[in-house]
Amino acid sequence: MSAELKGASTLPEAIDLSHHLSVVARNRVVSPLKNLAKYFGRPGMISLAGGLPSPAYFPFDSVKADILNYDSYTPKPATESQGPLSWILSLFSGNDSSSTIPITVPKYPEHPDDVNLASALQYGLAKGIPQLQQIIAEFTATIFRPGYSNHTIQLHVGNTDGWAKIVSTLCNPGEGILVSEWTYPSALETTNPLGISPVPVSMDGQGMNSAALREVLSGWDEAARGMPRPHVMYIVPVGQNPTGATMGAQRKQEIYDICVEFDVIIVEDDPYYFLQEGPYVHPTQRYSNVKQTDMSDDQYIASLVPSFLKFDYQGRVVRLDTFSKTIAPGSRTGWFTCNPIFAERFERHAETSTQGPSGFSQVLITKTLISWQATGYLQWLKGLGVEYTRRRNYFIDGLLDKFHLELASTPQTLFPGSVRYIASDRSGYFNEKGSRKPLFSFVPPSSGMFVWLQFHFEDHPKFKELGEETLEMQLWIKLAEGGLLIGPGNMFAANKSASSASYPGHFRISFSNAEDNDLTKAIDIFAKVVKKFHEDARIVLE
Amino acid sequence: MSAELKGASTLPEAIDLSHHLSVVARNRVVSPLKNLAKYFGRPGMISLAGGLPSPAYFPFDSVKADILNYDSYTPKPATESQGPLSWILSLFSGNDSSSTIPITVPKYPEHPDDVNLASALQYGLAKGIPQLQQIIAEFTATIFRPGYSNHTIQLHVGNTDGWAKIVSTLCNPGEGILVSEWTYPSALETTNPLGISPVPVSMDGQGMNSAALREVLSGWDEAARGMPRPHVMYIVPVGQNPTGATMGAQRKQEIYDICVEFDVIIVEDDPYYFLQEGPYVHPTQRYSNVKQTDMSDDQYIASLVPSFLKFDYQGRVVRLDTFSKTIAPGSRTGWFTCNPIFAERFERHAETSTQGPSGFSQVLITKTLISWQATGYLQWLKGLGVEYTRRRNYFIDGLLDKFHLELASTPQTLFPGSVRYIASDRSGYFNEKGSRKPLFSFVPPSSGMFVWLQFHFEDHPKFKELGEETLEMQLWIKLAEGGLLIGPGNMFAANKSASSASYPGHFRISFSNAEDNDLTKAIDIFAKVVKKFHEDARIVLE
Repeated sequence: MSAELKGASTLPEAIDLSHHLSVVARNRVVSPLKNLAKYFGRPGMISLAGGLPSPAYFPFDSVKADILNYDSYTPKPATESQGPLSWILSLFSGNDSSSTIPITVPKYPEHPDDVNLASALQYGLAKGIPQLQQIIAEFTATIFRPGYSNHTIQLHVGNTDGWAKIVSTLCNPGEGILVSEWTYPSALETTNPLGISPVPVSMDGQGMNSAALREVLSGWDEAARGMPRPHVMYIVPVGQNPTGATMGAQRKQEIYDICVEFDVIIVEDDPYYFLQEGPYVHPTQRYSNVKQTDMSDDQYIASLVPSFLKFDYQGRVVRLDTFSKTIAPGSRTGWFTCNPIFAERFERHAETSTQGPSGFSQVLITKTLISWQATGYLQWLKGLGVEYTRRRNYFIDGLLDKFHLELASTPQTLFPGSVRYIASDRSGYFNEKGSRKPLFSFVPPSSGMFVWLQFHFEDHPKFKELGEETLEMQLWIKLAEGGLLIGPGNMFAANKSASSASYPGHFRISFSNAEDNDLTKAIDIFAKVVKKFHEDARIVLE
Repeated sequence: MSAELKGASTLPEAIDLSHHLSVVARNRVVSPLKNLAKYFGRPGMISLAGGLPSPAYFPFDSVKADILNYDSYTPKPATESQGPLSWILSLFSGNDSSSTIPITVPKYPEHPDDVNLASALQYGLAKGIPQLQQIIAEFTATIFRPGYSNHTIQLHVGNTDGWAKIVSTLCNPGEGILVSEWTYPSALETTNPLGISPVPVSMDGQGMNSAALREVLSGWDEAARGMPRPHVMYIVPVGQNPTGATMGAQRKQEIYDICVEFDVIIVEDDPYYFLQEGPYVHPTQRYSNVKQTDMSDDQYIASLVPSFLKFDYQGRVVRLDTFSKTIAPGSRTGWFTCNPIFAERFERHAETSTQGPSGFSQVLITKTLISWQATGYLQWLKGLGVEYTRRRNYFIDGLLDKFHLELASTPQTLFPGSVRYIASDRSGYFNEKGSRKPLFSFVPPSSGMFVWLQFHFEDHPKFKELGEETLEMQLWIKLAEGGLLIGPGNMFAANKSASSASYPGHFRISFSNAEDNDLTKAIDIFAKVVKKFHEDARIVLE
């Protein structure tokens, strides 16, 4: 997988973004030993300088794993066959242990450049082992095609850690960060205690709205807001958490241009990038059988929405990638892609906090990717996309089975421009205008793990009595008591008070983890509880 | 390994140390979902709340390792035999691959409580997997015997990360932290950029001097110092970095009592705890062959200097332990032991930064410790102690071979109360009083990885011309050009200007990592360069 950066050149020196560095980041020193680095790599040099244990005392002689084949989730023609013997064939195919590949990482390698435990389990560079660095650098260049050539990779221990390092490096107490009005709560749990406040921007079906962003920035009144105009944006552009919204190329270009105009750094937290599922198609119209796994590598890469990196000619994008959704969350391994100045500061920060990711994680991921090769890893990612598409469809098909779903006839204010389904009770009441009373509505996500439901509590019999916020929590508790846990919308509001006031009654449902039979049970519970929630109230009132 | 806490009771409620929490730590929220936790563990509950990938898509079917036997570094009578066939026997013993033990961690376990990848590679608790939590809790109670029963364990990703979390949790910008006058530079690289300054306390042969500590605290002048009296101490009490000093029980009691008096939290960073080597004995007097590996578990535990935890009846000690020196640095796994209030804050911090240690690290360490069992791990630790003792002796014996070493006749001001060796050139000049001119001196460490050399540049021919600081750097460069890297003393000074002014000319030498032949070469280079450094200057001057 060679880096393809035709036309990309190094960042112009005239563009200097170092004024974005926080006071803390400016004060981080380079270790004095680094100034003496010219002596370090000399052949034959004996070092008694570091406080290193002897690798002889690492109790691991080797670490091994049985890994799945990269095509484990590529649908096989054999298993799709409907012939009379297909059930027998299926017994001998698919994801059984015989289809795994053994990998081994020895303590002492045959060749000094081979992945090995003596190096990876020793104190090492915060930027990670060189083999993993190289694989990630080539992968990033090939897939995300950053707009300049000297973009830099720096490992971190997961995007949550990456975001914490970015906040420390770019933000001072008393500042604000631009976020989508509904956003990942953990991102704010990182910033809030530091005295860094969210500045919510309205969303639509593609996530953050560019006109709303411009309005926030152009009309910024420092005195009224009590803080300077934000210079950092946090955004989850694909399969957004919690709304599931995915931002297309044009919107990204618009937002990038606004960030150039107002000198904003874009932090692109993109864990769901490879869970791009395409639009949800009603089962009766699901004609095409073309899957991501049928595509060539080039077709697949071209089918993915572009990263903000692709538009970045000024080095103002810090992209966060993670192996959490493509390998495993417990790997605690991910990486920054950004300009070299920020990357160097992230490395200094890592040296005095996390250091590099676990050596076990690094060698096992590296060896897996070496075993699969680049095209094998792409095949694995394609397979994941197909699998999550299947799960997304399974869940929404299940809703379709339990509720009357119809397409919204007019664009909704919340998510204009997107296909929105309105769900009502099949046997339910009609309202005064003769149309069905909507229970909830949602935009089927084209990426990620989440369906974001908006309840139409205004038609709930107790709406005026209780208010939407109380109804949201009451429904959540009824669902939990019925045996189903989902995410209450309020916890994702960037501005708890304002968002609650404008439109409470949201829930985030994740279709990524539960198996089909549990999803079926969950939809049953959901349908029963939601219908009863409205009916009970009606009965009480009548 | 059962917890032995006879007589220890829970912390009295009257002792509330929460006023030590930083502004940031107070502002860290508990995730809203935690308030709904009563619904989470219910049997049969289906959760679509979390953004979790399916474990089916973790490509690791199993992770395995070949681990060394716990007695790999226990000296075997067979290999020590000097009989005619001993060389043949030695071919079949020792640390070869046939003596390893295979361990396996499956994705899906046979029993739900077994260590497994489906849980450990999923998003998990920041406090780590329950099996590792339990092992560490029992180990901590057994070895360190904290003075109260409700001490709490919380995992971190290495002591560097642990210290960073402590600083964020306990310190506000503008405060000072008490440190030894020579200290681990990375600890200050964490605090300095945050506007938290080191307050150095003088040391002696046992590390931080208690009288000096009292003087600093009792005489604190907030106005003159420009900051409030420090309420946090950072200390490496065993095999101190860089001086190698180890603090005994009485000194620890004195320091603890002073910290009670002045309401100081003690952060005990103790990575070298299990590298306790005992006093260095001149080879001609090395009669005893009793090694740590000959001791019973109880004898071994009793032979170790007590942790500050043992004196802690108020919950004011935060202890940092790590697997970096006992398993491998690349494991990036360690733990806090402290009062429950601080532990809860560390957990909240981890949830918005590192999360728990790598799942691969956790399962491989856990499975190793389960395989070895508690007494096996103690045997492993005893073996490490013996190994590092051998390395310490090998290095100092080497110095003895190259220099004239004699015991200081009077206690030195720097390290009173310790055995100090003064090294001079065997064929060197005598000074005016007829005694040999000292080149350098050192206290042989009784723990850890480091020998701390103090050069006596006052006898150097160019002392008056160049000054000690320049001589230190010139000697460092001569050594590097000769092929040997060691740690320049100045980088370990808590207060660069003051310490340089009082006694520069220190070097830290680590004997922990290099193999014997490299140590021999290193001592050769060291002896030649040091002698030449003095002679060349003399020739030029004469």
